[in-house]
Amino acid sequence: MVKEKGDSRFEMTKKHHKTTFEKALLEGKMDIDFVPICKFLEKTKAYFSTSCCAGRIALMCLDEVEGKKKNAFYRKWHRKVNEKEILEAVNTFDGDCLWFKQEPLILHIGTKDLSGAQKLINAGHNAGIKRVGIIVAKEGKFIIEVLGSKNMNVPIKGTDFCASEDYLKKIIKIANIKFESNKKAIKLLEKELKKEIK
Amino acid sequence: MVKEKGDSRFEMTKKHHKTTFEKALLEGKMDIDFVPICKFLEKTKAYFSTSCCAGRIALMCLDEVEGKKKNAFYRKWHRKVNEKEILEAVNTFDGDCLWFKQEPLILHIGTKDLSGAQKLINAGHNAGIKRVGIIVAKEGKFIIEVLGSKNMNVPIKGTDFCASEDYLKKIIKIANIKFESNKKAIKLLEKELKKEIK
Repeated sequence: MVKEKGDSRFEMTKKHHKTTFEKALLEGKMDIDFVPICKFLEKTKAYFSTSCCAGRIALMCLDEVEGKKKNAFYRKWHRKVNEKEILEAVNTFDGDCLWFKQEPLILHIGTKDLSGAQKLINAGHNAGIKRVGIIVAKEGKFIIEVLGSKNMNVPIKGTDFCASEDYLKKIIKIANIKFESNKKAIKLLEKELKKEIK
Repeated sequence: MVKEKGDSRFEMTKKHHKTTFEKALLEGKMDIDFVPICKFLEKTKAYFSTSCCAGRIALMCLDEVEGKKKNAFYRKWHRKVNEKEILEAVNTFDGDCLWFKQEPLILHIGTKDLSGAQKLINAGHNAGIKRVGIIVAKEGKFIIEVLGSKNMNVPIKGTDFCASEDYLKKIIKIANIKFESNKKAIKLLEKELKKEIK
């Protein structure tokens, strides 16, 4: 009985996320780099993806100690950025504190049991990703988070300070290179997932 | 049979980590803020701590895209820092790329089964910590990672650039405030752990 309950909940959840994924794909809302992995997971019997982001660069309105405020996203890009758009945004910002963030890849995968979860952890580690963990562990529903560990995160403008234009240009350049490195990590993750699960 | 094997492995591991913890405490190698949680876990039947760090501020020699090199730690402090020691370190650095890092609290807790792991996830979430996950899931050995999400991470000096002294002073100030906020988070985590587990 218990097994059946878990199985049926899993089937329902997998079906729901299949629909959500296909809709996002159709509407162009999917991060293109993650499409191969999500398509692969969709075709497996025991896995599905619930959400993913191939990395982004963002400017956020937070307080000085990174506390979140309403409408915290001042700008965000799921692509490389250019100096002009960042400098324009910094120059026109007049809030409390503006944070520059280059965020790593993140992927959430669902599976039905612990042995499936363990395979995902193995695949993540084999792909060189340190932060892989089971974040939900319920009967018939396990969610695994795969999170890249390399990021950039720093305040660049406040009411009494602003990073120099030259320094900003340098960190933009570095952030773009790091953003690109997510693509390689995702390719490697795809390879390891295909080795580990069917 | 299976249960016994798991139980015996767990007892051995818990005992090993008890000794390691007591040795570190005696030698003054423990982050003082985590001592109450580690002592509490040690007294429980089903949990132990394997490692912890109450947060730190570090200067690391990495390459421009954060790739690790040999002897990557240029300076590190498990306390608040002052302007003088950071500026001195920056001024004397002549490597490829120096990264400024304010790192969040991290704690690893071991337990024997999935239901124990689930309680730790609940406690972490109830304490407002987003990144809590099971990173090892084996018979008789589950390891849960509790990781603060707020950090600072940015290159501050390279072969062709350096952040200004005024800007560095500002991010030092912010890093110190954020470092201190780890203490509050650890207190809250202790409270929630005591509610959730025995």
